[in-house]
Amino acid sequence: MDLRALLREIYDFPKEGIVFLDITPLLGDGKAFHHAVDMMAARFADANPTKIVAAEARGFIFGAALAYKMRIGFVPVRKPGKLPYKTQSVTYDLEYGTDTLCMHEDAVLRGEKVLVVDDLLATGGTLKGVLKLVETFGAEIAGVGVLVELDFLNGKDSLNGYSVQSVVHVGTPDKKPSCA
Amino acid sequence: MDLRALLREIYDFPKEGIVFLDITPLLGDGKAFHHAVDMMAARFADANPTKIVAAEARGFIFGAALAYKMRIGFVPVRKPGKLPYKTQSVTYDLEYGTDTLCMHEDAVLRGEKVLVVDDLLATGGTLKGVLKLVETFGAEIAGVGVLVELDFLNGKDSLNGYSVQSVVHVGTPDKKPSCA
Repeated sequence: MDLRALLREIYDFPKEGIVFLDITPLLGDGKAFHHAVDMMAARFADANPTKIVAAEARGFIFGAALAYKMRIGFVPVRKPGKLPYKTQSVTYDLEYGTDTLCMHEDAVLRGEKVLVVDDLLATGGTLKGVLKLVETFGAEIAGVGVLVELDFLNGKDSLNGYSVQSVVHVGTPDKKPSCA
Repeated sequence: MDLRALLREIYDFPKEGIVFLDITPLLGDGKAFHHAVDMMAARFADANPTKIVAAEARGFIFGAALAYKMRIGFVPVRKPGKLPYKTQSVTYDLEYGTDTLCMHEDAVLRGEKVLVVDDLLATGGTLKGVLKLVETFGAEIAGVGVLVELDFLNGKDSLNGYSVQSVVHVGTPDKKPSCA
């Protein structure tokens, strides 16, 4: 199944000069979405994760479907002020400025094997933040699973030391691409 | 399986006097999450939906897992400015003020059978907005599926005419509850 053909390039979003890779045509195709989740699950079948952790909002889509498929728990990572219980947070650097992500303090136990999931690996900034947050819990990282990896941004380099698995690899587009 | 026992009441969130029903303990329990998704799927097995539509962010969790389970497409509903392609939007009334939700204009086709999913049915405000939006596409509503229904808020009354299915029903708490 050609999943790449179901990714739509949107020019000048969220701002001029950026090519945004829109995954919604793939999500909207039931067979393609199911297949993509199965592929991701297969990549981590031997890693035996105990939890899936994913950041809002698009990370929830593949994270939750994969948690269902693998019959393991799902843990949402959210922006400050969104989670109702006591949280731990991490502030991490982005290209311009910083961002903060939060997780419930009882969401992951020391020693658990956590699979971190997102829809897209671009420069890896957000994923690094999530990994840093999960590691403050004393959990082990079973791997990082993404639907799409933008190979030319070398995001994998910033995730050095982790097992990163991507269902679809995307090569150089005409314009500078984005994961915004 | 006692799914109700995995819902945690958080007092005074997001503001004083409100009891927030926290679903994250249920999400974090792999067996419970899997069971809840299976129960929701069973309720709509005969409705034959062709797409699942859910609003960010928590709606994505059950919406995506259910789309995977039912092998149908998933359509995200988002706040303005988040979807990269051309959108249709709806502005709807809330208790105080209004809110706007958007969907890609090619996300649902005329005549499709859409299952609208969310984590929680409280007063039904957001779900009504999503239903209104889906109906502007000329789609048929196959039903509305939620994990938790706060029975005492009578949200189902505001969704009169739709097939609403709730996996867990929650009765009157000590304080005024919220779906915030």
